[in-house]
Amino acid sequence: MSEPVITLTTDFSEDFFAGIMKGVIAAVNPRARVYDLTHALALGDIRAGAFALMVSCGFFPPGTIHVVVVDPGVGSARRILCARTKNHTFLAPDNGILSWILERDPALAVHSVEEKKFFLHAVSSTFHGRDIFAPVAAHLSLGVRVEDLGPAVAPDAYTRIEFPKPVQADPHTLRGKILYIDRFGNGISNISADDLIGLDPAALRIDVLANSIKGVSRSYVAALPGTAIALLGSTGFLEIACSVGSAAKRFGLKVGENVTVIS
Amino acid sequence: MSEPVITLTTDFSEDFFAGIMKGVIAAVNPRARVYDLTHALALGDIRAGAFALMVSCGFFPPGTIHVVVVDPGVGSARRILCARTKNHTFLAPDNGILSWILERDPALAVHSVEEKKFFLHAVSSTFHGRDIFAPVAAHLSLGVRVEDLGPAVAPDAYTRIEFPKPVQADPHTLRGKILYIDRFGNGISNISADDLIGLDPAALRIDVLANSIKGVSRSYVAALPGTAIALLGSTGFLEIACSVGSAAKRFGLKVGENVTVIS
Amino acid sequence: MSEPVITLTTDFSEDFFAGIMKGVIAAVNPRARVYDLTHALALGDIRAGAFALMVSCGFFPPGTIHVVVVDPGVGSARRILCARTKNHTFLAPDNGILSWILERDPALAVHSVEEKKFFLHAVSSTFHGRDIFAPVAAHLSLGVRVEDLGPAVAPDAYTRIEFPKPVQADPHTLRGKILYIDRFGNGISNISADDLIGLDPAALRIDVLANSIKGVSRSYVAALPGTAIALLGSTGFLEIACSVGSAAKRFGLKVGENVTVIS
Repeated sequence: MSEPVITLTTDFSEDFFAGIMKGVIAAVNPRARVYDLTHALALGDIRAGAFALMVSCGFFPPGTIHVVVVDPGVGSARRILCARTKNHTFLAPDNGILSWILERDPALAVHSVEEKKFFLHAVSSTFHGRDIFAPVAAHLSLGVRVEDLGPAVAPDAYTRIEFPKPVQADPHTLRGKILYIDRFGNGISNISADDLIGLDPAALRIDVLANSIKGVSRSYVAALPGTAIALLGSTGFLEIACSVGSAAKRFGLKVGENVTVIS
Repeated sequence: MSEPVITLTTDFSEDFFAGIMKGVIAAVNPRARVYDLTHALALGDIRAGAFALMVSCGFFPPGTIHVVVVDPGVGSARRILCARTKNHTFLAPDNGILSWILERDPALAVHSVEEKKFFLHAVSSTFHGRDIFAPVAAHLSLGVRVEDLGPAVAPDAYTRIEFPKPVQADPHTLRGKILYIDRFGNGISNISADDLIGLDPAALRIDVLANSIKGVSRSYVAALPGTAIALLGSTGFLEIACSVGSAAKRFGLKVGENVTVIS
Repeated sequence: MSEPVITLTTDFSEDFFAGIMKGVIAAVNPRARVYDLTHALALGDIRAGAFALMVSCGFFPPGTIHVVVVDPGVGSARRILCARTKNHTFLAPDNGILSWILERDPALAVHSVEEKKFFLHAVSSTFHGRDIFAPVAAHLSLGVRVEDLGPAVAPDAYTRIEFPKPVQADPHTLRGKILYIDRFGNGISNISADDLIGLDPAALRIDVLANSIKGVSRSYVAALPGTAIALLGSTGFLEIACSVGSAAKRFGLKVGENVTVIS
């Protein structure tokens, strides 16, 4: 039987906190395999976390337990949620960070994580990643069910962040926004491949900041170095990139910036 | 039987050095599971390493082998120590970095690592992490005993760094210092929960830099955004934080800064 | 039987891309063990990647599959190569990044990776790490042979970057260059221990920038703090370091800087 997989997504950066979580998991279930999805989310950036989960979790094998600790509300009355979908289990603070992945991979059950027997004996008020998330994930990987963790939560009773869909301003104008700036300085927008179905990629104009980009490229190397290009990126969304460079640095592209597609 | 666990704690950052160590370990014991505790210690920062080990190692399962390579003296005559405690094994340069964890988890045996048959064939003078620490840890994970590595070292014969205990200046004044700045910009002091036993948390005043903080909070969200708060953090020590922000950035908090508790 | 080992070397930094690759690998072969060699290569820095591979791969166990995704040409017509050597398998874009490791560990077979049945069903034009490299590596770890991946490529038909050998300017003068700046700010040159055979280390003079260094030291602690030293580093190459400090910061040492050895 293959070993259970647990992923970690946090804003802990390189500090020792993620390491401690791995220790707690190994102490509860030595057979669990722990993979870092990313620890580089900006501090408390729930939307960046929601984006990372949305575009990543589906690539992990069925049965994976995804643990998400972007938790500015730790120690407050905020709940911890455990959501079971067809193939995956998610453990995260009730702050909306699971919203976008659960739009793609609907929850079959959502429970509030309250059963203390799955926690460490002493629970701090500031590091639930160590004291609750890690041991609960390890217990899930041993076969504990989502239903065992605490009471069910109704779909309308937990925090959701709506995915910011692009707006059809007129029949030829679709207005979107930058959702995420990746490691390469590419700006990933909320305009999906589906939003562009039926349009001729080569005939589109994409306006962002001072750039008016002609056509959707197939790859980063398609244009003159230093120029802005638009392409359908690996996440399935329209991306604004700089050929041989960083669009974030070169054009000052930021999360929230307007991206307009004119057909 | 569960697979042996090895942790790595270094100041190698993201460079390829930790990766090479994992290769050496895998070549000696393919069954060993290697977990990164942290590689983000400041260069040669023995006290930060001592702190990270002290607050982290106890969360790993019994039998874990902790490898520590913060080693500014590599290539000098400094020894390498292997310490066995009740449940763990530690491998580190003889520079004091194990001092604080061994105060909590006393060494039952400390040996000088000298037995070359457990080293790589060629030992460089600058990367003992690869040539000595990694293969020795892997051999330990295969059942080699601490005693097999070299001669015993008496408790008074290796380097120790005293834990900087806070000072009771008068019956109402406890003077401590910041020990560690974490990823969130929180300043963790040397004043432990035990040091505050019998005192009323709400009635304490905590002075640090220009801030005079009233009472010990339970969580980071307990105060107005941007204000200084004090709380008993997950490490068991009094922490100075900034509600919704970084105390290090906002108040200029640094390692070594005075923290005074007035009761 | 021990579990197959896959290493990852990329310029993805801490973003979620490496995490996604691990998910894809785990989905194809749950038994594969994935080790990060480094994800901190500068963006698109093929020479830094070539150096990291050259000095690291040999420490991994026989049978290791090394996956390299430094791929500024992703989406262009550049091929993906799979090279089998005596003990290792390498998967990388055809951009020269394997050149230096293959000088040390010669390829017995090099094939162009084209067999789509080993790819993810949908292949993006911008993230072949996820869509091609990860699943192909996982299939290799399951026993797929290099020869199964696509047509053989002749030794003169793929991209090579020549290793920049030092130049013997006159019988007493060897001119080299800095190849890599490591995490400690040490500058690693292209002058190897072999290049210095027969010379008296103590009698050499090493000129770099404004520094004229007398003799080759044995370790970083051999000199007065703040002074430049030269030593044969763990990679087997002459290194320019700053005793207790960063040569990169202190002396402005950069990749490409001249290093002259006068005997």
